[in-house]
Amino acid sequence: MMTTVNATAAVWSGVEAGFSVDTLPLPVLRPGEVLVRTELATICGSDLHTINGDRPTPLPTVLGHEAIGHVVATGGGVTAADGEPVSEGDRITWTIGTACGTCRRCLRGIPQKCLSVRKYGHEAIDDHWKLNGGFGTHVHLVAGTGLVKVPGHLPATVATPANCATATVTCAARRTKLTADDVVVVLGCGMLGLTAVAYARDLGCTTVIASDVDPSRRELATRFGATTVVEPQDLAATTSEYGADVIFELSGNSHAVRSAFEVVDLGGRIALVGSVSPAPEISFEPSGFVKNLTTVVGSHNYRVDDLVEAIDFLERTPAQQLFAGLIPAPYALADIVQATKTASTGGAPRIAIDFKEISS
Amino acid sequence: MMTTVNATAAVWSGVEAGFSVDTLPLPVLRPGEVLVRTELATICGSDLHTINGDRPTPLPTVLGHEAIGHVVATGGGVTAADGEPVSEGDRITWTIGTACGTCRRCLRGIPQKCLSVRKYGHEAIDDHWKLNGGFGTHVHLVAGTGLVKVPGHLPATVATPANCATATVTCAARRTKLTADDVVVVLGCGMLGLTAVAYARDLGCTTVIASDVDPSRRELATRFGATTVVEPQDLAATTSEYGADVIFELSGNSHAVRSAFEVVDLGGRIALVGSVSPAPEISFEPSGFVKNLTTVVGSHNYRVDDLVEAIDFLERTPAQQLFAGLIPAPYALADIVQATKTASTGGAPRIAIDFKEISS
Repeated sequence: MMTTVNATAAVWSGVEAGFSVDTLPLPVLRPGEVLVRTELATICGSDLHTINGDRPTPLPTVLGHEAIGHVVATGGGVTAADGEPVSEGDRITWTIGTACGTCRRCLRGIPQKCLSVRKYGHEAIDDHWKLNGGFGTHVHLVAGTGLVKVPGHLPATVATPANCATATVTCAARRTKLTADDVVVVLGCGMLGLTAVAYARDLGCTTVIASDVDPSRRELATRFGATTVVEPQDLAATTSEYGADVIFELSGNSHAVRSAFEVVDLGGRIALVGSVSPAPEISFEPSGFVKNLTTVVGSHNYRVDDLVEAIDFLERTPAQQLFAGLIPAPYALADIVQATKTASTGGAPRIAIDFKEISS
Repeated sequence: MMTTVNATAAVWSGVEAGFSVDTLPLPVLRPGEVLVRTELATICGSDLHTINGDRPTPLPTVLGHEAIGHVVATGGGVTAADGEPVSEGDRITWTIGTACGTCRRCLRGIPQKCLSVRKYGHEAIDDHWKLNGGFGTHVHLVAGTGLVKVPGHLPATVATPANCATATVTCAARRTKLTADDVVVVLGCGMLGLTAVAYARDLGCTTVIASDVDPSRRELATRFGATTVVEPQDLAATTSEYGADVIFELSGNSHAVRSAFEVVDLGGRIALVGSVSPAPEISFEPSGFVKNLTTVVGSHNYRVDDLVEAIDFLERTPAQQLFAGLIPAPYALADIVQATKTASTGGAPRIAIDFKEISS
């Protein structure tokens, strides 16, 4: 039942040309595809990297990948991650990229690096796939996208970052085998860091040390459940007292990455997550690394099971209202430029866009 | 039934004082302890580090930790890793160190780093524990040592390195989750490297690339099952063709460690094993590490289950006779000094000592 024939989206044509809010036709859905009416989208740091010219992307494109929405129509044969069919009206989130399920990487458990991956908010518009990012009234989900249902009672402000920030954290936690027995260190207390703090507490970790240069972010980390917050220069002294079994490096800052190697306890695991732009090399002394049985994992994006866990976590966490509070009143799509400028100030962990003013 | 009252062991008193082959009393066994008549001992690279003054150790001590032997007597209440009792006459090998089973590290799955670990060939002789290394007619196994039975038909030359070289490899393979689907790279083709090559083939890996500066070691690697052997400078070109899912760095050479980071494929795992002495720092670019989902694990020593797997592997490998061929005719204990000099030349992967000429 597709009563509208057009969508409205913020089409990005590069640093010079910027955004234009355009009317685009709704797609003719193929089998396995889904058309979603976007409920809310949030602006991720990597959107800002693109907007600032720090990350090249094919053009023109619809940016945005953190989003949720309601199913308007499907091309048939569409199931969610739980195996249930996806139907009109379902509230869903989706993986940031597609996975074919059959290539070497998919078969090796890293579908986020599928050899034929297509990522929302990262691809050029083409004849069939125009609504390929979150900054529009509709998103056209193509075959191979992992779909996860979002409970109706979960606030949109809580659920929207699930398919980037939250699932990236649950993936890193899975890859480092985080358990309740671990002393946890979180480096960087932005959206991912606050999520990591709350997730570690959710898993039962009783010592969660959070570090950030910004006192207001440290204060937020405490509210999200950090048992100790420190300035980066005090990290070594603090961890020498408690140990550091699992370290989430979410800042991408070179000093923070280096500090992870310095403070990790014997048998500890470091998840490097925040370093997504080329940066100076990091060095470590190998014999200490060997004798301390250190593990370091690079973690980027996630699998659909991590997204399932992300939604489950957001539904059960006592920090739900705190997550909702991270996102100020949303901007209208027409104000996309101002929204990205506000997001660039870093004043709030996420800036949201909604689409209520656009009829459909 | 202890018919002898004395043992003969090569007591090491430091770089200046060297070895003296001494008569030492047999211990009065306590519950959980075992006295073994040594069948064969091999000289590991870390024994040579100590002898060369590169690794400080408490003195005086009996060096040697790679050994097998037959049980002479027990203090009672002794079981092997398979849960069966250990009895007089059993042919056994044992973990390089003790583990209490109750400390934080033991409970966290890293018993090789037990907070009260005592390691064979690494501790000072004391009133109760004199026969604490492999270079003697008898070894006194204290409580907390993991014991693994050695099949009678397994040649001693094959079984003796199990409790250091082989188990270190099976541990590193476990920690990197090595499977038959992985393209494997082995850096360094000494005892551990040849073992890693044969073990990867045993697990079903069809592409095993071995690298060493020494042409004779590359030739050996081919005989042990390497599908491709390369000089280190040709590694990058070779792996770019095949990929490199799991890399065993067994040489400790800085260039080799660095190369592991350069050639690892997307989603690949690097086991750093060979770096056991302080060395120059190794550097890597973090965003490539993150986006490639790289994993690096430091692996040192092993758990008792790794030793069980080591003996199982040595029993089933078609490379058994090749392993036996790595060890020339053993030296007598009286010739320990000459044996260590020969081992230092690196001409053979292992030099053995036997005790046949000493009555007991």
